[in-house]
Amino acid sequence: MEFDTIAAISTALGEGAIGIVRLSGDDAIAIADRFYQGKSPLSEVLSHTIVYGYIVDPATNERVEEAMVSVMREPKTFTREHVVEINCHGGVVSVNRVLGLALKYGARLAEPGEFTKRAFLNGRIDLSQAEGVMDLIRAKTDRAMNVALNQVEGKLSKRVGILRQALLETVAHVEVNIDYPEYDAETMTHELLREKAGFVIGEIDKLLSTASQGKILREGLSTVIIGRPNVGKSSLLNSLVHENKAIVTDVPGTTRDVIEEYVNVRGVPLRLVDTAGIRETEDIVERIGVERSRQVLKEADLILLVLNYGEELSPEDEALFEAVENMNVIVIVNKTDIEQKIDLERVKQLADKRPLVTTSLLRDEGVEQLEQAISELFFEGELEGADVTYVSNTRHIALLEQAKATIQDAVAAIDMDVPIDLVQIDITRTWELLGEIIGESIQESLIDQLFAQFCLGK
Amino acid sequence: MEFDTIAAISTALGEGAIGIVRLSGDDAIAIADRFYQGKSPLSEVLSHTIVYGYIVDPATNERVEEAMVSVMREPKTFTREHVVEINCHGGVVSVNRVLGLALKYGARLAEPGEFTKRAFLNGRIDLSQAEGVMDLIRAKTDRAMNVALNQVEGKLSKRVGILRQALLETVAHVEVNIDYPEYDAETMTHELLREKAGFVIGEIDKLLSTASQGKILREGLSTVIIGRPNVGKSSLLNSLVHENKAIVTDVPGTTRDVIEEYVNVRGVPLRLVDTAGIRETEDIVERIGVERSRQVLKEADLILLVLNYGEELSPEDEALFEAVENMNVIVIVNKTDIEQKIDLERVKQLADKRPLVTTSLLRDEGVEQLEQAISELFFEGELEGADVTYVSNTRHIALLEQAKATIQDAVAAIDMDVPIDLVQIDITRTWELLGEIIGESIQESLIDQLFAQFCLGK
Repeated sequence: MEFDTIAAISTALGEGAIGIVRLSGDDAIAIADRFYQGKSPLSEVLSHTIVYGYIVDPATNERVEEAMVSVMREPKTFTREHVVEINCHGGVVSVNRVLGLALKYGARLAEPGEFTKRAFLNGRIDLSQAEGVMDLIRAKTDRAMNVALNQVEGKLSKRVGILRQALLETVAHVEVNIDYPEYDAETMTHELLREKAGFVIGEIDKLLSTASQGKILREGLSTVIIGRPNVGKSSLLNSLVHENKAIVTDVPGTTRDVIEEYVNVRGVPLRLVDTAGIRETEDIVERIGVERSRQVLKEADLILLVLNYGEELSPEDEALFEAVENMNVIVIVNKTDIEQKIDLERVKQLADKRPLVTTSLLRDEGVEQLEQAISELFFEGELEGADVTYVSNTRHIALLEQAKATIQDAVAAIDMDVPIDLVQIDITRTWELLGEIIGESIQESLIDQLFAQFCLGK
Repeated sequence: MEFDTIAAISTALGEGAIGIVRLSGDDAIAIADRFYQGKSPLSEVLSHTIVYGYIVDPATNERVEEAMVSVMREPKTFTREHVVEINCHGGVVSVNRVLGLALKYGARLAEPGEFTKRAFLNGRIDLSQAEGVMDLIRAKTDRAMNVALNQVEGKLSKRVGILRQALLETVAHVEVNIDYPEYDAETMTHELLREKAGFVIGEIDKLLSTASQGKILREGLSTVIIGRPNVGKSSLLNSLVHENKAIVTDVPGTTRDVIEEYVNVRGVPLRLVDTAGIRETEDIVERIGVERSRQVLKEADLILLVLNYGEELSPEDEALFEAVENMNVIVIVNKTDIEQKIDLERVKQLADKRPLVTTSLLRDEGVEQLEQAISELFFEGELEGADVTYVSNTRHIALLEQAKATIQDAVAAIDMDVPIDLVQIDITRTWELLGEIIGESIQESLIDQLFAQFCLGK
């Protein structure tokens, strides 16, 4: 394939010690040479070496930066194209000026995800691996990163590949039967189809069984803290935030809209919803209005319902339990450091089978039990396992579900003695659907759309 | 000198395509080898080459990342020590995990600025060059970057070096006269002293003459927009922000306290004070209270006083002029798109010699003139000149001023026929003060303090 040469800033924007401007394409080295001044031109240095020099605009002869420049020739590069990485001082102006020169002297500004897209289009990685790259960058916890890394390494691709191979063999077998009816063994073919379909369905089920956990690891567990005023909601929030060192805040590169707060609870990324609201007013329900708060609750993956150990249960408390019926709730009875007034039996009744934890956030008691409860609620014991191939991407989950439904149609058709060449359409369709996961038989427009969600410079 | 091996994340924190963990020190390569798995160990690869491999924790055998690793052996490195740079996927978790391994297997977490400090302590750069490195990263405009780059390249050091050389020669000459009185030529020595001192004072003056501009370029021009409600303060703000593409916002890496807004007006970084206040309430004076607003005004480098073309001057307007007496003010008469009611003659009288610009922000008229006025107010024409060595650092300015005062003392002493060996004390002191700029004859504790202001990973 032939592409033009692209360039972008590949490090996060901000004040860093080092910033990288990356170029990729046939002319990457030639373009960089136009504004690089060193001992020898980049075109003459060995591949995969680093040279020191100055970034100089030849039009004005003005020194723009000093830089360490990495030259990597195809095909052993991220994109499988020639890649030049200019490591300069990591200030915002600095990297922008160097990028400016790259664009001025022949490169085109890369679209978000375009480097990874080229790695895909040039055949170095498949689509699910490319998606894993993005997940790696966005991962909020170690476990989430492991899931993404497995995907980057192609473990999901391999699993999908095995299924597709099985389907392909079935199709081939059927073709033979259709083309050479003299070897006919229709019954046998039906048997074989059932067996292969059963295998594929079983494997898809195994993959899908990891989906809810995989999705949580990838996207975080949207968590809402509710409770009457003064039960300790902000203490709980602060305690979760402080106890867990690996806090990650999303600071969007250019806008300053929403800053979400992630807390790492034993590898589970908790996305705390409306923490500003809690911090400021101590009362999310009052603040955002009853209607909207119900909506927030409905969209949450986890609700932490906080009660006061030192007060009797109020009608408002009971109303909260009603509001969160059928949701993932952990009940927290806080302030065990003061005299008990709450009716714990009644609380247990209201909590029903849902986890109940007593805490004294003041004395730092009970937080571990709470974290344990959160972890158990979503991961039921099997916490470790870097080897499990989690399906975490909503797109993959949807395709697996479609593939499963399609192959189930095929099985139903077999059972109804539908002609084998009609059954085959479903099987081929299943093969295609699985192929979309790894980027085969997928529309170009969809590919563009997928990569557009990537971050700039990747 | 002997140092331990340090490590830090050297890219800005956030979601970037690439993140770098940097190690520096005698054991940098050996430590990285403990958790790097590639075709061959890093200890065997050539200097200044890049190799692909995996980052694996040997304790668990868990793959933590895939990475491109740069190996750079001393002395041709940033720190003049062995340097290993691990380029991994730029997510927050990813770089933190890799850094975690570096620390687990023998490196110490670098203090802010410690890499640059080593470059200084190992003699690759002097102190003013090191300070320039930090300024490069923090630069808000191209021109500010040029100032910093000149400093990094040692242009200020060279100028200071020439002065110190002149002082040293003088001291040597005086020493000779003292030690060998038979060659006495006291008058001649006085003459020489005066001449040399005059040269040094003249050069210091030249440097100091760039200080106010240098400081503005380095720190930005703290700018306040004032005016009665509804004169167009937020329009002015928006217009400045939108007309000037190179907006830089400071997003502090870990905290989320204050986000300052910088606007690049012809290379001059305007730091807009309390823009949130203006955007929200359209009335800074009311919002922050009269006392505090006077304080804000007092601390501002530039005040943009906005009046309404379509209204008569009010007593409040006149009061504003009083409040900003003796400050750098540009008067803006906005809304020339509506019928004139303001008494422009009176405005001119009030503005006195200060720049007066009429605008219609609605029609996008007059903004260029305003920018011209801002630029002229601080840079009087000589806008270009990448070659000018600006003194921009407050520490340098203070030292230059002290040096000037001390050598002036020496001249006064000469004029009063003070014994030459007493005069010599002042000259030696001047030499020391200038030396502090480049980090000679400077206390270790002060050096620590200076580098602590650097950002992490540099």
